Amino acid sequence: MAFDSFFNAELDRLRDEGNYRRFAELERHRGAFPAATRHDGPSPSTVTVWCSNDYLGMGQHPKVLAAMHAAINEVGAGAGGTRNISGTTRHHVALERELADLHGKEAALLFTSGYVSNWAALGTLASRIPGCVVLSDAGNHASMIEGIRHSRAKKVIWKHNDLADLEAKLAALPAETPKIVAFESVYSMDGDIAPIAGICDLAERYGAMTYLDEVHGVGLYGPRGGGVAEREGLMGRIDVIEGTLGKAYGVMGGYIAASAALCDFVRSFASGFIFTTALPPAVAAGAQAAVRHLKTSDTERRLQAGRVASLRERLDAVGIPHQPNPSHIVPVMVGDPVKCRWISDLLLDEFGIYIQPINYPTVPRGTERLRITPSPVHSEADLDRLTSALATLWDRCRIARVPMAAQ
Amino acid sequence: MAFDSFFNAELDRLRDEGNYRRFAELERHRGAFPAATRHDGPSPSTVTVWCSNDYLGMGQHPKVLAAMHAAINEVGAGAGGTRNISGTTRHHVALERELADLHGKEAALLFTSGYVSNWAALGTLASRIPGCVVLSDAGNHASMIEGIRHSRAKKVIWKHNDLADLEAKLAALPAETPKIVAFESVYSMDGDIAPIAGICDLAERYGAMTYLDEVHGVGLYGPRGGGVAEREGLMGRIDVIEGTLGKAYGVMGGYIAASAALCDFVRSFASGFIFTTALPPAVAAGAQAAVRHLKTSDTERRLQAGRVASLRERLDAVGIPHQPNPSHIVPVMVGDPVKCRWISDLLLDEFGIYIQPINYPTVPRGTERLRITPSPVHSEADLDRLTSALATLWDRCRIARVPMAAQ
Repeated sequence: MAFDSFFNAELDRLRDEGNYRRFAELERHRGAFPAATRHDGPSPSTVTVWCSNDYLGMGQHPKVLAAMHAAINEVGAGAGGTRNISGTTRHHVALERELADLHGKEAALLFTSGYVSNWAALGTLASRIPGCVVLSDAGNHASMIEGIRHSRAKKVIWKHNDLADLEAKLAALPAETPKIVAFESVYSMDGDIAPIAGICDLAERYGAMTYLDEVHGVGLYGPRGGGVAEREGLMGRIDVIEGTLGKAYGVMGGYIAASAALCDFVRSFASGFIFTTALPPAVAAGAQAAVRHLKTSDTERRLQAGRVASLRERLDAVGIPHQPNPSHIVPVMVGDPVKCRWISDLLLDEFGIYIQPINYPTVPRGTERLRITPSPVHSEADLDRLTSALATLWDRCRIARVPMAAQ
Repeated sequence: MAFDSFFNAELDRLRDEGNYRRFAELERHRGAFPAATRHDGPSPSTVTVWCSNDYLGMGQHPKVLAAMHAAINEVGAGAGGTRNISGTTRHHVALERELADLHGKEAALLFTSGYVSNWAALGTLASRIPGCVVLSDAGNHASMIEGIRHSRAKKVIWKHNDLADLEAKLAALPAETPKIVAFESVYSMDGDIAPIAGICDLAERYGAMTYLDEVHGVGLYGPRGGGVAEREGLMGRIDVIEGTLGKAYGVMGGYIAASAALCDFVRSFASGFIFTTALPPAVAAGAQAAVRHLKTSDTERRLQAGRVASLRERLDAVGIPHQPNPSHIVPVMVGDPVKCRWISDLLLDEFGIYIQPINYPTVPRGTERLRITPSPVHSEADLDRLTSALATLWDRCRIARVPMAAQ
């Protein structure tokens, strides 16, 4: 087979659809983020990043950086092995304790990423619990979908955030069938939030395990940053809370927090946990510093909420359509992959504003969007420049007869 | 279902088999590695680590640490997003160029780990190339096995390192069927090396793509550390070279190096690449420093080879059975999970020597072993202490009538 010809043809198909991805090449400047230098343009230029998942700017917090420097000085670069073969350090153990405490669980288990934590934990639970059926929210992240797929367990998809549909699907299964209800708190691309209490009620009624992905919630919600479930007093009713250290905590890595037995089971059987090099100690140390800081500091969360409200007000004032939701994610809907890319390019090239276009497969076709994530490190002046640029482009796009689909 | 009871019963089964894993909790000391402080004993104690995959000690190399410190100072902690959404930094781009150059390929693509690189790249290639069949060496790593499994492509397993069996299996497939031959250079647990040239001959004859996992080869073999394929002048005949930044390069992360079209294809379609936060810039910077250093410095490789030869001579002198192989991995065979754990515990508790027991599922049942990885940072005195401890235990084990199965 002429493999490269096949690859090129598939890539051309993506290009024709407007879904071929080009990566912006950025260089942040510690202390100056959200400003960054863009290196993929004709010459280096300064841009303001508006689409980062470093939601609270913890990726440049002095405590986080100091913890990373200290760990490198003390123990060096990498872990040097899998968790089982010389790769468990006191930094990993301490971080797991910190995370178990964060969620009020007996234990926590670290993975190399949030993606791997969902894939490995759900994949292991669903494949190893005999006869297990996974009830998966239709909006679940790729990492959960792939984990369930990998398990080869039966999957039942329930309508996104729809309690009646979930109940119908739970009720249709035999009482003795082991069930896992898998869902997210904050859905990344729409920014909507699950009816967690109602899901817990149903799960209890039908004897299902609850598996909650809080990757867009941890650090951001709850008095100690335990996520939406903490804010709503529901952590004790969730069997498995999955989170990330790469978004609000500003570093990298993923985890689950759950009973000691469940964590030990996943630790002992998950291929994606067992057969991979552990996180570098400095990454664990930096993440732990971020988790600890956000357990007691509410400043970043309050500032972020203010920025989000402020952006929404400004968008309203200039008539830019944005999808309402109760979270920190502001989706400005475009509804066409080529136009979405075009607006993003103009923002970057003409206004020094970086908002990556979000196209298929990250979102369904026809719901292409600009996903804006205001943070404590964005200033009022940044907000002014963003709003003004969007207003200018919206006018120009109308002139150019580019219809905008406000969902 | 009483989930925790089920988990505990499964864990008890592991314990009964002797396959329940306890992790040693270590604290390295920069500059003093392989010495480390053990934190999981009755009180902290100093141990010598003999089972790390930080094969060359690059995890404490000043250039690596300086690059990490510098990157943290310049750009902060995490990447803040997926590669597509604000997470591509100049550190990632520079490292991909460095790796493409290392292997003489048009391009390289970074993943969060070697596990993810195999899982995502093989999974994507095998599932997306229509009708693809993967011919997989029987000894392949879990990450390749899971990637192939995930793809749902047809898999044909050929006998480990057996060219005749590979040819028979290639010949049995229709000429027009797209084929991938997936194998490793150095097999981690036995330390044996694949007949790469012969595999390339067969792949060319039957029109198959070659996919070579060099995670235990990169940095260690070849004049620039390009791996066994570089040493043997074969990189140009391999379609995909997969490697890790978490073993000889001392940090974390994985990659593939291949044609621009293939890398772009995987970049564009692999869920495990697309939907995950990029490596922290400091991790990429540290890894790049290690790759660059080992492109020009042969000192570490020569020192390591000397240590390996020296250990084997000493083991021979005291009659400790070790499996011969042409690599840097010295497997001392035990052949029983309980005894393997027991010897490991005695080494740790009485001699301050840390060699993790390698039991099922990492190796087949009945081939449990101590896997020793001598490195440039082990001294002659370390080698003396290790040999003396093993000899003492071997005597004691004989007295205690623990038969040793030397494979």
